[in-house]
Amino acid sequence: MSEYGKAAAGILGRIRSSKPVVHSITNYVVMNSTANVLLAMGASPIMAHAPEEMEDLVGIPGSAVINLGTLSVAWIESMKLAARLCAAAQKPFVLDPVGAGATQLRTRTAKDIVVEALPAVIRGNASEILSLSPEGGTTRGVDSIHTMENAVEAARSVATSLRTVIAVTGERDLVTDGRRSLVVSGGHPLMGYVTGTGCAASVVVGAFIAAEADALTASATALAFFGLAGSKAGAEAQAPGSFWVKLLDALYTITPEELESEAVIEES
Amino acid sequence: MSEYGKAAAGILGRIRSSKPVVHSITNYVVMNSTANVLLAMGASPIMAHAPEEMEDLVGIPGSAVINLGTLSVAWIESMKLAARLCAAAQKPFVLDPVGAGATQLRTRTAKDIVVEALPAVIRGNASEILSLSPEGGTTRGVDSIHTMENAVEAARSVATSLRTVIAVTGERDLVTDGRRSLVVSGGHPLMGYVTGTGCAASVVVGAFIAAEADALTASATALAFFGLAGSKAGAEAQAPGSFWVKLLDALYTITPEELESEAVIEES
Amino acid sequence: MSEYGKAAAGILGRIRSSKPVVHSITNYVVMNSTANVLLAMGASPIMAHAPEEMEDLVGIPGSAVINLGTLSVAWIESMKLAARLCAAAQKPFVLDPVGAGATQLRTRTAKDIVVEALPAVIRGNASEILSLSPEGGTTRGVDSIHTMENAVEAARSVATSLRTVIAVTGERDLVTDGRRSLVVSGGHPLMGYVTGTGCAASVVVGAFIAAEADALTASATALAFFGLAGSKAGAEAQAPGSFWVKLLDALYTITPEELESEAVIEES
Repeated sequence: MSEYGKAAAGILGRIRSSKPVVHSITNYVVMNSTANVLLAMGASPIMAHAPEEMEDLVGIPGSAVINLGTLSVAWIESMKLAARLCAAAQKPFVLDPVGAGATQLRTRTAKDIVVEALPAVIRGNASEILSLSPEGGTTRGVDSIHTMENAVEAARSVATSLRTVIAVTGERDLVTDGRRSLVVSGGHPLMGYVTGTGCAASVVVGAFIAAEADALTASATALAFFGLAGSKAGAEAQAPGSFWVKLLDALYTITPEELESEAVIEES
Repeated sequence: MSEYGKAAAGILGRIRSSKPVVHSITNYVVMNSTANVLLAMGASPIMAHAPEEMEDLVGIPGSAVINLGTLSVAWIESMKLAARLCAAAQKPFVLDPVGAGATQLRTRTAKDIVVEALPAVIRGNASEILSLSPEGGTTRGVDSIHTMENAVEAARSVATSLRTVIAVTGERDLVTDGRRSLVVSGGHPLMGYVTGTGCAASVVVGAFIAAEADALTASATALAFFGLAGSKAGAEAQAPGSFWVKLLDALYTITPEELESEAVIEES
Repeated sequence: MSEYGKAAAGILGRIRSSKPVVHSITNYVVMNSTANVLLAMGASPIMAHAPEEMEDLVGIPGSAVINLGTLSVAWIESMKLAARLCAAAQKPFVLDPVGAGATQLRTRTAKDIVVEALPAVIRGNASEILSLSPEGGTTRGVDSIHTMENAVEAARSVATSLRTVIAVTGERDLVTDGRRSLVVSGGHPLMGYVTGTGCAASVVVGAFIAAEADALTASATALAFFGLAGSKAGAEAQAPGSFWVKLLDALYTITPEELESEAVIEES
């Protein structure tokens, strides 16, 4: 789809030139790695969670990412506050419901945040997205045991009922607003052997929605960019340690032109 | 000892096929790196600490690792709760008493957790293990200043009195249940120039006890596997940054057959 | 300046032989990476923040680093306690006022800590240092938007009024005690595409002040060492993932002799 390839190139070019601030309230496991993902691709990460400075932080233009990874009650309050302030400031944010379905606390927190304020995009694996549908679902920790096929209908249904964009990542990624659905190809099996690749996909979406108002386009092109970086890294590395190094390198070296010609985004 | 080589190969094979969940309540410093260690070797890490979801988390089959690294009072309560729930669920857990002996808080917390519930394995350096013996001991931060020789008798004595397995890691590793003692060789001097290699050893033991009921065998073979990965990484890297990348690569590429022929485990 | 080159070599040699303990109370984003920086260069990191063990921790000889990165109210109390205990023990500490100027909480916290106890060195980017001057200033998150030129006078003025050493890092670094000012060259543009290079500079200064009583000399030589490591890494790497690996490698492989001949430190 050259339409989306062109869009992807344009968004990446804007990120590289304007270095948008992406504010993450995220888990301890991936703070370093997702900050590096954002820096490598050309964005400006801020990682901060104190309620006392949330208004100042949300006041900085850009986007936000709320990630439930290493949840605790105090952080949940910060996440809800950030969501409300983003809504008031009309600042887009991505919700990454890590482990939703695996514990009641996570499923409930993900649903509570959506009630506080509507995310521009919710990105999760099939299990996490299924758990947000009225029919529910269970996950095995942070792993995806449900197939993409199970999740497609749930994703459309959640997107329609919430009126937001849902991005389900897996071997192939699905992005839908309930009416239109896009399938994104790319990536590499080694992504499953490195921590935080899902969280990394979420911050890449965060950077793209800071530079593109259409959340469906932003999400699909972000995942195409991240998938291309994964494919390139996987072509050079044989094992997970080297793969992560090459992935960061690829996020930095991929040009808008390369992304335009290599992005694989199809209507579903 | 071909007996242990065969056991090591069998356990690693089972980890690769069943991808056991290892739940870590660990320190901020190594959350990313130990999650990567677990993923690279074929296990499934979960990093989560909220008391509100502890019952759900402990209910997931596998093993747990409790690591005192960046201790705080709130986290101590989560650790104790996790230990109690593991005991109730008969789920094995590893205790890594980081810095025990260096501060009173750490020594006391390590001893308190053992009172709450018996770890399947306690893995530490010589100083940390010495601090758990009735005779006590002091450490210099998280470094080992006591020699392995000092620690062997302390390890046997702690293992006997607690009726658990003690793994003391250093230039060579000692694993003992108080009656039988095994010495494991391997590793590389560059391990001392990268953070979290001790913590990484603990999560590798965590993965092995999820796949092998005999904690002495599981611990010794886990340390032989980790030591082999260190030796291979050290043969390829000249400095710590490259060494860590190669170590993760080795954890992924070592086959059960290679481990069987290369594991160096001897009766003490 | 061969005077400073000799001093740099001497300090690095002492660090390599005595492996001083550097205790960091720092942010979640860089705990792993700055621990690795300290280990690679030959120092001994401790990362710990609980008030209950602060007295024991400050009692360990060496230096401390207080970094405001992922601030919260509970951690602020730990930071203030650590500062007071350092003052009482005459233990030098570095303050890294991450994001001062970006939020009121950070600016106020940085100023409050300085009131509790005088840091041996305050290291920040131009925006952060400007925010500490009586005239104030604002920052854009953790990025530097103010130029070094703006910051030089502010740095001298802050150094004079506080009677401490201020290190402003940027394309070139300025170190001043208000009377004498040194300019340090080195580094590489890729440093801006990896998270925590500023925080890493602060812990390197922390290691150098543990081995050298003169804080101006320690700070300038530390930054020359870190800049040389960055230059060497940048000569070998084309992108941020590889750059970080090479940077850690360089911190380990640079010899005192190499540092003596390559350090670029000039009177301003």
